[in-house]
Amino acid sequence: MIGNAIVSQSGGPTGVINASLVGVIEEARKCKQIKKLYGAIHAVSGIRKEHFIDLKKLSAKTLAKVAVSPSSALGSSRDKPDEAYCAQVLEVFKKRDIRYFFYIGGNDSANTCYIINEMADKVGYDLRAFHVPKTVDNDLLVTDHCPGFGTAAKFVACAVMGDDLDNRALPGVKIDVVMGRHAGFLTGAAALAKQRQDDGPHLVYLPERPITMEKFIADIDGVYKRLGRCVIAVSEGICDVDHVTWAEKLAANAERDSHGNVQLSGTGALADFLAGQIKGKLGIKRVRADTFGYLQRSFAGLQSKVDAKEARMCGRKAVKFAMKEDNGSVAMKRIGSGKNYGVEYFRTELKNVAEKTKSVPDEYINAEGNGMTKAFIEYAMPLVGGLPQTEYLGGCPKV
Amino acid sequence: MIGNAIVSQSGGPTGVINASLVGVIEEARKCKQIKKLYGAIHAVSGIRKEHFIDLKKLSAKTLAKVAVSPSSALGSSRDKPDEAYCAQVLEVFKKRDIRYFFYIGGNDSANTCYIINEMADKVGYDLRAFHVPKTVDNDLLVTDHCPGFGTAAKFVACAVMGDDLDNRALPGVKIDVVMGRHAGFLTGAAALAKQRQDDGPHLVYLPERPITMEKFIADIDGVYKRLGRCVIAVSEGICDVDHVTWAEKLAANAERDSHGNVQLSGTGALADFLAGQIKGKLGIKRVRADTFGYLQRSFAGLQSKVDAKEARMCGRKAVKFAMKEDNGSVAMKRIGSGKNYGVEYFRTELKNVAEKTKSVPDEYINAEGNGMTKAFIEYAMPLVGGLPQTEYLGGCPKV
Repeated sequence: MIGNAIVSQSGGPTGVINASLVGVIEEARKCKQIKKLYGAIHAVSGIRKEHFIDLKKLSAKTLAKVAVSPSSALGSSRDKPDEAYCAQVLEVFKKRDIRYFFYIGGNDSANTCYIINEMADKVGYDLRAFHVPKTVDNDLLVTDHCPGFGTAAKFVACAVMGDDLDNRALPGVKIDVVMGRHAGFLTGAAALAKQRQDDGPHLVYLPERPITMEKFIADIDGVYKRLGRCVIAVSEGICDVDHVTWAEKLAANAERDSHGNVQLSGTGALADFLAGQIKGKLGIKRVRADTFGYLQRSFAGLQSKVDAKEARMCGRKAVKFAMKEDNGSVAMKRIGSGKNYGVEYFRTELKNVAEKTKSVPDEYINAEGNGMTKAFIEYAMPLVGGLPQTEYLGGCPKV
Repeated sequence: MIGNAIVSQSGGPTGVINASLVGVIEEARKCKQIKKLYGAIHAVSGIRKEHFIDLKKLSAKTLAKVAVSPSSALGSSRDKPDEAYCAQVLEVFKKRDIRYFFYIGGNDSANTCYIINEMADKVGYDLRAFHVPKTVDNDLLVTDHCPGFGTAAKFVACAVMGDDLDNRALPGVKIDVVMGRHAGFLTGAAALAKQRQDDGPHLVYLPERPITMEKFIADIDGVYKRLGRCVIAVSEGICDVDHVTWAEKLAANAERDSHGNVQLSGTGALADFLAGQIKGKLGIKRVRADTFGYLQRSFAGLQSKVDAKEARMCGRKAVKFAMKEDNGSVAMKRIGSGKNYGVEYFRTELKNVAEKTKSVPDEYINAEGNGMTKAFIEYAMPLVGGLPQTEYLGGCPKV
């Protein structure tokens, strides 16, 4: 099938979503079936407005810079298209003779691809809408892991690693709040920071393990009494045993102070609340809290090499699969572990990925629900593409 | 003068304070005048408790790892020694035949060196207490800039660079709160992130330029109306025109440290307060705020090469100067600019550095008091040792 193609990026940016974009571009340029290659600015919103740029005109130098740039080079959108919205998108596709649509995003984007494909089928318009996975949350089904996770995990691990050394130098309790509303993979990545037996994070809390404030405080008290310090990684989606997130409970109070909208990322409210609880209940003076916020998905100059390579390949494979087969989503299967780590790429049905999410499996979380297992470290470590090695001298023998 | 030596690290950690430590160690090992080389754990507090380790025993491999590790490998302390405290330190020096004391820290550490030197002089004990500068704040006198600043500035620039691209992808108002209680150098470093004409940060606020909330809001309104988005770097020390910091006004019951200062880092309160003001007064829906917190001084794996080299040289020069001359502090003089940038190291009197601070000079701040000048960029850019180059495609011509 010969026609034009569109590529676009949706949802929260990542450190390698542009590597996937470049993968799509470099593969699409080789395809004789693809005449024009449009980039839609600001995702579906840009398609509806026909805000397109010509991606075949970009120089190799520009593409090389795009591939290493964080965030979404084509812009993004939080629009969640309904049937009417998708119908408008399809009209633009028809008008511009778009036969291939490559949509880089999370499970919502897979769903958009699914809806548009179904619509096109109904009216007999030949279209292949392909989903290219991306998310720092690592919560898509079918694929072993998601492009974007490895880079965000590397950021979190490096941040907690340095933070733990900072906490050794000036001891106290330190809380680091990490992204991940429903899935705790990224918070779990904090555990990759551990190099020495008594390194932090000493406690890790995921949305998958509801916890009472009493247990949370008791855990910290235990570590602090043992080590004289405590570094804690907490997911922004941490929730109470009634399954209501602490951020939500807190937001109810915040609204009474008429502080405006409360969201999870881009606010330090949860971190400050937790620090306040620890100070109040344990009487520890030096309690600090940082919220990693948008840095963990958009820090310039930091990519996991493995993640960047896989993200690019996912983009390329989407084009290859679309040429040979039909619509679908790209997924990765892990082959080998440790130094023999590698992946194979395959096509899966859009409906297997659309609107669904994955949680951190039980075998990756310790029995206490406050730390990660060796199995998780083995799963996540190859994805960050190496971490810095550090040294602390305070443990050397006294003279 | 032949005797033993102590080296120690004080105050807030930085990304290269360990490079200075390694510089002291490698130079001290060459000196015949130095018999034993002790590392004091947790600064003056460790000296008082005689918590020492033998730094001559460390392997080259260990030293190489120390040099690239963030935070203070010997631990730190926030103790601000008075005369009685210093007298105890001097007693330990006498007992252990310490003739050389290398103290890596800020202006408080220079003052501690000064006091102990004076005391030693009074009782006729031959001592050379040498100060090695470090601070992410870049606020020491005499020296052109401080080891630690370049690395923190690189972190801030990379963070804002990625954050600005994130803000292009999903437009709104974004506030980034940066360390720097009294001096705005590090907040100013956010301006290094700008590569394109309309790149953020669009506004930069330093403690050196008091500002009303009305002006702050009006500035943001202007940028937002013009660009449809706005990225703002704000110093944690931002203050109102009555010279009271907003953080202080905000935190009636805020925690105070041993220096009587309100806790600014390790809390997201200021950022959230500012976001609330913008939402409330401008009715903009997507307003986000991040506080860079401890990450900007301790992120693992991120060093400015220039900063790391200079920090190491400052450590080495302290030893060299102490052997040939007397007590003092190491300072840097800039020679050349741009690609010809370099420094010369020299010795200055402790009293020139002790307890004093430097502010951002007027010529580095724009007339409006909400941005940095070209002169500042020329000053700061060589110190970060290179920044990533990025690309955004949303500005390409429409087709």
